Amino acid sequence: MSVLKAVFLNASLKSSEEESNTDALFEEVKKIYTNHHVETKSIRLADYHIKYGIADDLGDGDEWPQILEEVKKADIVILGTPVWLGEKSSLATVAMERLYGSSTLKDDDGNPIYLNRVAGTVITGNEDGAKHAARSILYGMSHIGFVIPPNVDAYWVGEAGPGPSFIEANGIENEFTKSHVKWLAHHTIYMANLLKQHPMPVVTFE
Amino acid sequence: MSVLKAVFLNASLKSSEEESNTDALFEEVKKIYTNHHVETKSIRLADYHIKYGIADDLGDGDEWPQILEEVKKADIVILGTPVWLGEKSSLATVAMERLYGSSTLKDDDGNPIYLNRVAGTVITGNEDGAKHAARSILYGMSHIGFVIPPNVDAYWVGEAGPGPSFIEANGIENEFTKSHVKWLAHHTIYMANLLKQHPMPVVTFE
Amino acid sequence: MSVLKAVFLNASLKSSEEESNTDALFEEVKKIYTNHHVETKSIRLADYHIKYGIADDLGDGDEWPQILEEVKKADIVILGTPVWLGEKSSLATVAMERLYGSSTLKDDDGNPIYLNRVAGTVITGNEDGAKHAARSILYGMSHIGFVIPPNVDAYWVGEAGPGPSFIEANGIENEFTKSHVKWLAHHTIYMANLLKQHPMPVVTFE
Amino acid sequence: MSVLKAVFLNASLKSSEEESNTDALFEEVKKIYTNHHVETKSIRLADYHIKYGIADDLGDGDEWPQILEEVKKADIVILGTPVWLGEKSSLATVAMERLYGSSTLKDDDGNPIYLNRVAGTVITGNEDGAKHAARSILYGMSHIGFVIPPNVDAYWVGEAGPGPSFIEANGIENEFTKSHVKWLAHHTIYMANLLKQHPMPVVTFE
Repeated sequence: MSVLKAVFLNASLKSSEEESNTDALFEEVKKIYTNHHVETKSIRLADYHIKYGIADDLGDGDEWPQILEEVKKADIVILGTPVWLGEKSSLATVAMERLYGSSTLKDDDGNPIYLNRVAGTVITGNEDGAKHAARSILYGMSHIGFVIPPNVDAYWVGEAGPGPSFIEANGIENEFTKSHVKWLAHHTIYMANLLKQHPMPVVTFE
Repeated sequence: MSVLKAVFLNASLKSSEEESNTDALFEEVKKIYTNHHVETKSIRLADYHIKYGIADDLGDGDEWPQILEEVKKADIVILGTPVWLGEKSSLATVAMERLYGSSTLKDDDGNPIYLNRVAGTVITGNEDGAKHAARSILYGMSHIGFVIPPNVDAYWVGEAGPGPSFIEANGIENEFTKSHVKWLAHHTIYMANLLKQHPMPVVTFE
Repeated sequence: MSVLKAVFLNASLKSSEEESNTDALFEEVKKIYTNHHVETKSIRLADYHIKYGIADDLGDGDEWPQILEEVKKADIVILGTPVWLGEKSSLATVAMERLYGSSTLKDDDGNPIYLNRVAGTVITGNEDGAKHAARSILYGMSHIGFVIPPNVDAYWVGEAGPGPSFIEANGIENEFTKSHVKWLAHHTIYMANLLKQHPMPVVTFE
Repeated sequence: MSVLKAVFLNASLKSSEEESNTDALFEEVKKIYTNHHVETKSIRLADYHIKYGIADDLGDGDEWPQILEEVKKADIVILGTPVWLGEKSSLATVAMERLYGSSTLKDDDGNPIYLNRVAGTVITGNEDGAKHAARSILYGMSHIGFVIPPNVDAYWVGEAGPGPSFIEANGIENEFTKSHVKWLAHHTIYMANLLKQHPMPVVTFE
């Protein structure tokens, strides 16, 4: 069986010069991926100049096409986001819009590029909003063609109100978060392998 | 100035034989109301037989009309809910549907019954979902005619995952929750008084 | 290969004495299921006395256990709902709460009852709100253990404002709705068959 | 009474070189504002270089401070957005994050800058998602300190699926949309005037 590839799109509002709590949580998922020989690539979206719009390439310095190349290579796409005002970040919204705007592309075999790909999400915030962000991301990914395995929303949030984030709060000790990290990793691997071996055909409309 | 009245609709899934965390949080709001001579009435929705449907009176033993009478008397309507699967409860959804189904009724002066009334929400859950519930409730109330003052979402939720609820976790000591209790109480009182003295006229469509 | 079974939970607020637009849309899905030898069973939730609470059996006349028996037999679970105030119905919320409250049950082999089951949704409304309802339902189903194939949200809504519903508006002629009916049917069949032949193992936490 | 000012933040993904459906709908609101001597200013967010982050001024060429100056002068803030994937646009999310990041600023009198300001929203899309976008925007505005009058969500969306947008579809003839345009305009004017004459005091926490 060929090696699986996972890409992690991190929609932190901070560029990679700064520490990202969402990245720290993804690192836990990555450990399991690595143990199972899944190749991973992390992309910090804030490092790129991604233009606003609904298309795969908006030209004029748009760097989304570079990111899209990595998405097209991946069997598993994990969109990670922090929580602001109880929602996914603006950069996560940009990513969803650009993924949507690229969803009509075909691969070399003439199939939609997201066919038989699997999606999940990783979310951190100091408080409330993870499920709202997961709901938006997983539905959006499903609506544009990804398969959503069970329990692929790994998150940590603290008690209501301002407070420490994942790293500072040592959220990695949270048993619920640990379980979801395992589920996210194992369920995406299982489904990606299964779809690789038994790809779903395109439904045609005669 | 006449005395203000506030009604608290508690959408806990449990009837009043059982303790309600949402009720406990509302009691904190009630203390401020009482200090400011606002009369309060708490209604546990699970104690009533409320039928499903979009109308003010569905007959056949429907007890929504009793609740609607209290809503009509109130200057301030607070809809309280627990969080399940990161959302408001089914009983809160029933309450919103029935409030919506009653929104075309007129009072004795021929005005819509919710005109110049103020709404807010009180939410408790063991984890994540309060803002999603508040978003739904406050928008719904605004869409059917209520005024939404600033910061009228008082809530407590714990860290990600299963865990103790508001009462057991002593959530009342949470400074963020305390602030929002004060804001909810004072902002609803201020706006309700203001609209009582300077009622907004109905916009007519000639 | 054994025959697939699909159950359709219709969360219309009306009992089966009245016509349901959501049912009419599901009938389109059912035609494809029948052509592919998938056995279907439709359950109108409003015909049952389903108690409020988070458990699989709340006793005292609770009729959820009858519905749960059908869910346990099904390879594919479709939750259908009308749209009210831009959201899924209160009965759909009840169904999600009860499915959640039943999610820790095990089957005869000791596996979680929703393992290797597939979910989708069918939604009708006179206007705006289908994607919000789908987002909630598909995320909730994923979070409690179902697999979500791509494009399993078949819906019809009309232009903004009051207006005719699916049946009266002849929504079945809408090309977008037709495509989603096909995708919902074929994608749930493909994934349910695949998981039947290659069931995902339970992730254990040593 | 001093003249009221309204600012319209248009979160279209297109810059002002291109036609905006959301702008066309706001123009209908503006007619009423102008008739009532409310000064309006429209800002196309895509024309500005707005940085990602949660602060009022992120430096390094950040143009949010220019926009914030207009918000601070306004009695009424209308955030307008198109609908993509059933949600508000990424630029609307950026605007909410930046408004949130500016919410702790004080004015010359030492009051929070959004105190006694009124918010509303204008939304267009070719299909489904307006209420979800309104829910997010109005809740967010309320949570950071704005007053939300009743019925301040003016929107137009078409039937399910791809199709013409507001301008092309002649959405301005939609009676529901027309009513909401009137309500949005008149209710924001009434509440803004009322709060100007009877400003709500800051709740202090002794």
